[in-house]
Amino acid sequence: MPATNGPRLWDSLMAMAEIGATANGGSSRLALTEADAAGRALFGQWAEAAGLAVHHDAVGNQFARRAGAEAVPPVVLGSHLDTQPRGGRFDGVLGVLAALEAVRTLNEHDITTRAPLEIANWTNEEGARFTPAMLGSSAFTGAMPLAEALARADAEGVTLGDSLATVGAAGDTPLARDFDAFFEIHIEQGPVLEANGVEIGVVTGGQAIRWLDVRVTGRAGHAGTTPMPARRDALFAAAELAQTIERRVAETDGLLATVGECHVEHGSRNTIAADLRFTLDLRHPDDAVVDAAIDDLRARFAAVAERRGVDCAVEPHWRSPALPFDETCVGHVREAARALDCRWQDMISGAGHDAFHLARHCPTAMIFIPCAGGLSHHEAESIEAEHARIGADVLVNAALARAGRA
Amino acid sequence: MPATNGPRLWDSLMAMAEIGATANGGSSRLALTEADAAGRALFGQWAEAAGLAVHHDAVGNQFARRAGAEAVPPVVLGSHLDTQPRGGRFDGVLGVLAALEAVRTLNEHDITTRAPLEIANWTNEEGARFTPAMLGSSAFTGAMPLAEALARADAEGVTLGDSLATVGAAGDTPLARDFDAFFEIHIEQGPVLEANGVEIGVVTGGQAIRWLDVRVTGRAGHAGTTPMPARRDALFAAAELAQTIERRVAETDGLLATVGECHVEHGSRNTIAADLRFTLDLRHPDDAVVDAAIDDLRARFAAVAERRGVDCAVEPHWRSPALPFDETCVGHVREAARALDCRWQDMISGAGHDAFHLARHCPTAMIFIPCAGGLSHHEAESIEAEHARIGADVLVNAALARAGRA
Repeated sequence: MPATNGPRLWDSLMAMAEIGATANGGSSRLALTEADAAGRALFGQWAEAAGLAVHHDAVGNQFARRAGAEAVPPVVLGSHLDTQPRGGRFDGVLGVLAALEAVRTLNEHDITTRAPLEIANWTNEEGARFTPAMLGSSAFTGAMPLAEALARADAEGVTLGDSLATVGAAGDTPLARDFDAFFEIHIEQGPVLEANGVEIGVVTGGQAIRWLDVRVTGRAGHAGTTPMPARRDALFAAAELAQTIERRVAETDGLLATVGECHVEHGSRNTIAADLRFTLDLRHPDDAVVDAAIDDLRARFAAVAERRGVDCAVEPHWRSPALPFDETCVGHVREAARALDCRWQDMISGAGHDAFHLARHCPTAMIFIPCAGGLSHHEAESIEAEHARIGADVLVNAALARAGRA
Repeated sequence: MPATNGPRLWDSLMAMAEIGATANGGSSRLALTEADAAGRALFGQWAEAAGLAVHHDAVGNQFARRAGAEAVPPVVLGSHLDTQPRGGRFDGVLGVLAALEAVRTLNEHDITTRAPLEIANWTNEEGARFTPAMLGSSAFTGAMPLAEALARADAEGVTLGDSLATVGAAGDTPLARDFDAFFEIHIEQGPVLEANGVEIGVVTGGQAIRWLDVRVTGRAGHAGTTPMPARRDALFAAAELAQTIERRVAETDGLLATVGECHVEHGSRNTIAADLRFTLDLRHPDDAVVDAAIDDLRARFAAVAERRGVDCAVEPHWRSPALPFDETCVGHVREAARALDCRWQDMISGAGHDAFHLARHCPTAMIFIPCAGGLSHHEAESIEAEHARIGADVLVNAALARAGRA
């Protein structure tokens, strides 16, 4: 099995991090800004130095192609080089540069693959400049029409199409062309691998996500003149609903619930809350499990509301079904981890990634490595160089298993 | 006992309500606006027609004096004619016009009192144009220095002093002059009298009020990648604190708790809440009871925070001690109610009133009448004409008991 060069990969990560480097050790390369353009250029130079042919599609997705022995669809490895406004050094970047390290390693070993290999740097994965996130892979796979993608505007009103022209990032590589497979290595952005002392997460798919909006309507009243039994307090009702959520979630392994926003409309310190809204994010690997939890919560919410004399409305906001990755590609990742004799485990991806768009386009799998404290989207995001190396080893071997030796 | 003229009182209330009348049946007379000036002028005409001498002090408090047999400090009856931007017809207005009805009744009965009587229309009670509320009585009694009161500015930057000059409402009656006593009749602004089928509330004082700021600090994290047991969720912690408040309050009769504002800092639907603030308003007639509840809550909050791995800080924001009214004046009100053979009960005032400033200046008492559904600060505020009449009867007889017949 070919082994990657850990220090070389780390040096590339650190060199890329200097582009848009922030005072606190992170990186700031918002999509299609000058900093992002500089990151793209550096990656392009490295790719060409490795003998790859760099090309772009109409939304600026950047590809670097290594020819194979046969003219068949490529096995694609990649992620993204754009970052949050004050992001870390590894989220996305690892996936592109570990792919580069994989190619460099194959070059060193004079290995020609049957299928071509390509490295992909997807445009605007973070969603921090243009919404939504994963825009480039979305447009590539057809989830979003090209015209809509080009028309997305940033906070200053500059469109993605204009930004592409400014930095010269658009090209004529066809969208939605055939891929044989897609592999993405990424930091976990969660604490599981670190907590388990595991080096590699074999990602079997993405979990089901439901976003709900909950509105509790009580009755306003004077804080000083309304006896407690006469109140229909939307806030105390919502507190009980939140506790209901927490208890329901504890009944089911792997079910996640987050109430990230909560707002009392026309809230005032000495007025009983009458109109309160909160958001609910529910996730589980299995669609049926999360939907059953929602049914349960609706019933339990209704009982609380009835007892308290308030109204409670639960509206769906967004629904993303569970998405299992391709069993063969996941098997390649698992076999590569097993052969390397590292500590690995199967896991679900909690966050969104370009790989989820690609999974609807071609056989896809992902590899996770630990990040310190599960921290990401933060300048202090941190990984072990050793984990990056092991991850790149898994990536190159999984890709090789898929693409085949010539 | 002299009896007031219910229809005359009601006609006066309805005539005053036409000044600044709103489309939905309320009134809008923000302090020292043209509408308020017109209300003051109408009251002044009525007072002069009843033989009273109208005069003003330096913050525009309007007085109408009925001479007594002796040159002693007056017994003062009153409230305020200003309203919320879309206020009701009775909050404050009843207190001024029932006082006028009391004087009209004494006139009809040719009753001269030993002490002079005065009707007071306190400036800017609502706090809706200039903050704080009860500004006129505050400046009169010295709780707020005159210069500070005159410098208070509305949302457009117009000062109270300038507004006084514009509407010609300032005069040279001394501030802080001696009052023999102060009586204020007001709608309850709560549901207790109506629920109890009672016509008159004999107000024995104001309750202790504590405003607290609670801040819960957890740890941010990704809604999709952080296992539930690894979370330090500030929102779920706050929900348990809110339930803790509700349970603690239920242990003590008459203790009131309101969480009127709640805010997740940097809240996002798919991020675990890390920094949440909420307000807490606690009230009880007894200072010791409310302080003991706060001690309890601090201890219970700390236990919740410790168990959940979050921080919880409880900061005092404002403290208003319980304020018992003068026993003799309260006795006059109670005796008047008893003599009228109406349904009455002792009660505490939950809301703030000019009478609380006056209570620090002279012997003071208040009379409450029911309002429909406890509703106030609302165009739909509503009372029974019969209750207004009974309230005016209590007022005139309590005042007569205090001032004495010549």
